[in-house]
Formats: sequence, C-alpha cells, structure tokens
Amino acid sequence: MTNPTACLLIIGNEVLSGRTQDANLKFLATRLGEIGIPLREVRVIPDVRETIIATVNEVRAKFDHVFTTGGIGPTHDDITAECIAAAFGVPWEPNPEAWERLAAHYARQNPPGDFNTARQRMATMPRGATLIDNPVSIAPGFIIGNVHVMAGVPRIMQAMFEGLAPKLKGGAPVISRALHANGLMEGQLAEGLGRIQAEFPEIDIGSYPYYRPTGNGVALVAKGVDAARVEQATAAIGAFMASLGFPPVEGEPG
Amino acid sequence: MTNPTACLLIIGNEVLSGRTQDANLKFLATRLGEIGIPLREVRVIPDVRETIIATVNEVRAKFDHVFTTGGIGPTHDDITAECIAAAFGVPWEPNPEAWERLAAHYARQNPPGDFNTARQRMATMPRGATLIDNPVSIAPGFIIGNVHVMAGVPRIMQAMFEGLAPKLKGGAPVISRALHANGLMEGQLAEGLGRIQAEFPEIDIGSYPYYRPTGNGVALVAKGVDAARVEQATAAIGAFMASLGFPPVEGEPG
Repeated sequence: MTNPTACLLIIGNEVLSGRTQDANLKFLATRLGEIGIPLREVRVIPDVRETIIATVNEVRAKFDHVFTTGGIGPTHDDITAECIAAAFGVPWEPNPEAWERLAAHYARQNPPGDFNTARQRMATMPRGATLIDNPVSIAPGFIIGNVHVMAGVPRIMQAMFEGLAPKLKGGAPVISRALHANGLMEGQLAEGLGRIQAEFPEIDIGSYPYYRPTGNGVALVAKGVDAARVEQATAAIGAFMASLGFPPVEGEPG
Repeated sequence: MTNPTACLLIIGNEVLSGRTQDANLKFLATRLGEIGIPLREVRVIPDVRETIIATVNEVRAKFDHVFTTGGIGPTHDDITAECIAAAFGVPWEPNPEAWERLAAHYARQNPPGDFNTARQRMATMPRGATLIDNPVSIAPGFIIGNVHVMAGVPRIMQAMFEGLAPKLKGGAPVISRALHANGLMEGQLAEGLGRIQAEFPEIDIGSYPYYRPTGNGVALVAKGVDAARVEQATAAIGAFMASLGFPPVEGEPG
C-alpha cells in the first residue's frame, strides 16, 4: 500500500522576511511521518490573495492532504480563510458554530470582551467547512475538502493538530534508524553507501555530515515503512561503517 | 523602481522528514531583504529527480533570482547539480576549475585524501556554470542563469552567500520598524490597524501576537523600501497604540 501524501503551506510575510523563525515545519513533518502521511512538499508564501488561491488549488490537486498554517487571526493581513473560500469557489460566510464559540468566549471574559467586527472575521469561513478545535485560544481552524487550515502560532497549531490527528487516516508509519561515527567523512563512504542504497531501493538512506564541538562526522539514516527492511539496511550500513574502521554508534549525534 | 524578487528552494528529504530543523530560510530571508532582493517564495522539496527539475524550471521563470540549498555533497542522495543541468538542458560534466580546487585540497591533506569518484561528483557541474567559493570546505557551489546553487550545511551556505552578496544587484533595501505592547490584543486593534494599512498601501504592516513568560501582547511591524513612509506609518501605528491605552515600546519584544 502506498502511503497518502501531505503538503504544508506556511502562509505569512513574517516568515519570508526573516522576522519569524518557522517552528511548524519540523513539528508537522515529524508528526505526519509518525502517522504515515509523509510530508512531500512545503511552500512558504506571502499574504497575497492571488498567490494563496493559486497555490491552494495547485497543491490540493497534487497531494492527498494539505495543511496550512497562518493567516487566520483578526487583522487585515489574515486573509487565509477568504482565499480558501475563493479557491474552492464557495461563499466566505459566518460559520454558526464558530460564531457561537467565539461569542461565548468573549462574553465569559471579565470584563466581557468585545466580539467586534475584527473578531467576527475569525468565525467567518468557507461554506461547508468543518471546525478544528482550538483548546488554547478558542478561534477554530477548519477543514474543507482535503485542506486543513490551522493557526500559525506554534502552541495553537500543535494543539489543533493533536485534536485532528486521531481522525487522519494514515498509512504505515515511517520508521527511522540512525547510526553515526565521529571522524568519518562523506567522501570515504559515498561509493559503498550508494551500493547499499541500490540493494534497498525502497528504503530512503540519507547521509548527513555534522560539525559539533565534540567532533565532526557523518550520520546515516535509513527510513521506510517496512520495519524488517529498515533493520536490514541499518545492519548493512553498520557493517560497512565498521569495515571502514569507524564502529557505528546508535542514533543521531548528541 | 520595483525590487528584484527571489525564491529559495530547500532541497532535501531530511527537512521534509523532520530530522533536520532548517536554519537557512531565516538567514537568507534576512540577508536578501537587506540587499533589496526580497524573498517571495520558499519551497522545500525532496531528493527526487523529476521534482527538482520541474520545480527549478518553474521558479527560475517566475522569479528574478533562485537560490538553492542542499544536495551538492558526494553521496548518492546529492543529485542537485545533475538535476539543474537537466533543467537547463546542458551536459553535467567535470568543471575544470572546481576539479583543480578539490584535487589540490585532497593532495594537501596529511596523509593525502583520496580524490575518489564520489568526491569528483562535487566537481561535476552543468556546462557553463560559474563557481561560488566555499571558504569552509572547498567544494564550490555554482551559478547558472539566475540559479545560485549552495550547500545545505548552514555554516558553509552562509560563507558562500557572503562571497556572492556583493555581486548581487539588489533594489532599495527593505526597511523594517517594530513596536510592541504587553497586554494589547489583536482583536482590539485590528479595525484601526486596517485603516492605517489602507492609508499606507505601499507599506507592509504586520500584526504578530506573542506569548512570553514576561507577558503576552502584540508586535506591529511596518516594512517598505521608502524610509520616510515607513517612519510615517510607524508614527501612525504608535499613536494608535497609545490611543488604545498601550504606550508603544520600540522594537520587537525581548
């Protein structure tokens, strides 16, 4: 069985300008791999209407699942929801359930908060969207078709994703095994490693040099959905490292 | 004058799998903004030949400059250079200058390193490429057309970029001014901020909530290439924050 695929759209000028270090890619890449929906592409795009619409339509046709982060707050640059509505060709309109949750949230505050026009934007969604719960700050994300629209603030996005995760139908989880050795250089092992990769075409073998205060070296990582084959590839890599005079150490370098 | 635009391609399974936290996006976004070549899109793509070729051809037609990171080492998964050659429809062949630099580098080592087939891959480039110096580990990057091919290891990529930067012809640098206030919430300011954005259409005004141990609040950032207009927009934002009862603090929250 082939695993379903995912694409992540990071929407926001603040990432493209260097103001904000993205913290969502690594989290979602890891969690989606565990669920068996490997991330196949990421795009970081600006808060520009035409770009968001065109990109959403391109990637929702190309991947099984699309996840977006960013642009669902109350301010003028939060245009993700209305762009997704336009991409799907449906009205962007108040979502009764989201409206009720937010109205109740502001009414509960002491003193009561103002559920003003700006905040009402956070309850305005493409017609037909279903909500993604936000246990941190209430304003929900939503799902329409295969597109999952989440907040950009990492703490909120992570809470949204964990609520969503049990409902996502993944394939076999991606299993990963790492070995490393200080002193080993990529140029020494490249040819032999290429031969091991050729023996295990369905396993993704990666070679990653590292530079640490405790020493330089190479980490070799085998990934795949067939646990037995990942083990076999890892054993072959370990034996090869030892044959070069570098006994392998389990895991990533510390 | 309109500024030239840039697109970054981050090439590597290790970023898409969550193994590696990308550290190149923020660096390049910041430096390109300073040079006046704002980053308009980033794509993270896997080490898959067809994907690399198609993506390079799409983005080199769409943006003034393309920068790539990753996939130029000696191992089987380092396929960026041959894919770029295929994208440009030119042979992938030994580059005499790169070959000489690497041969000399391995000959200089004590004991001499082996300039083997795997390492020779790092001197094999698209015909017509010009080199990007690598003061850290010798193996050069290269430029072909408007595509700048750099290493994925941040220390090496940064050294390559700084050698390249003086030769890049940018537009006016993007100027950025930030104000913030603890206790302020986006929902309170969104409507007024939208009016300020409408008054300064050429200035990019962003609103970013923050959650810190020292307090929650909002940072407001004005960006643009016209310094006087950035100042005026910042003054308008500051006066508006004060009118809400939150005296603005200069800069980003600590």
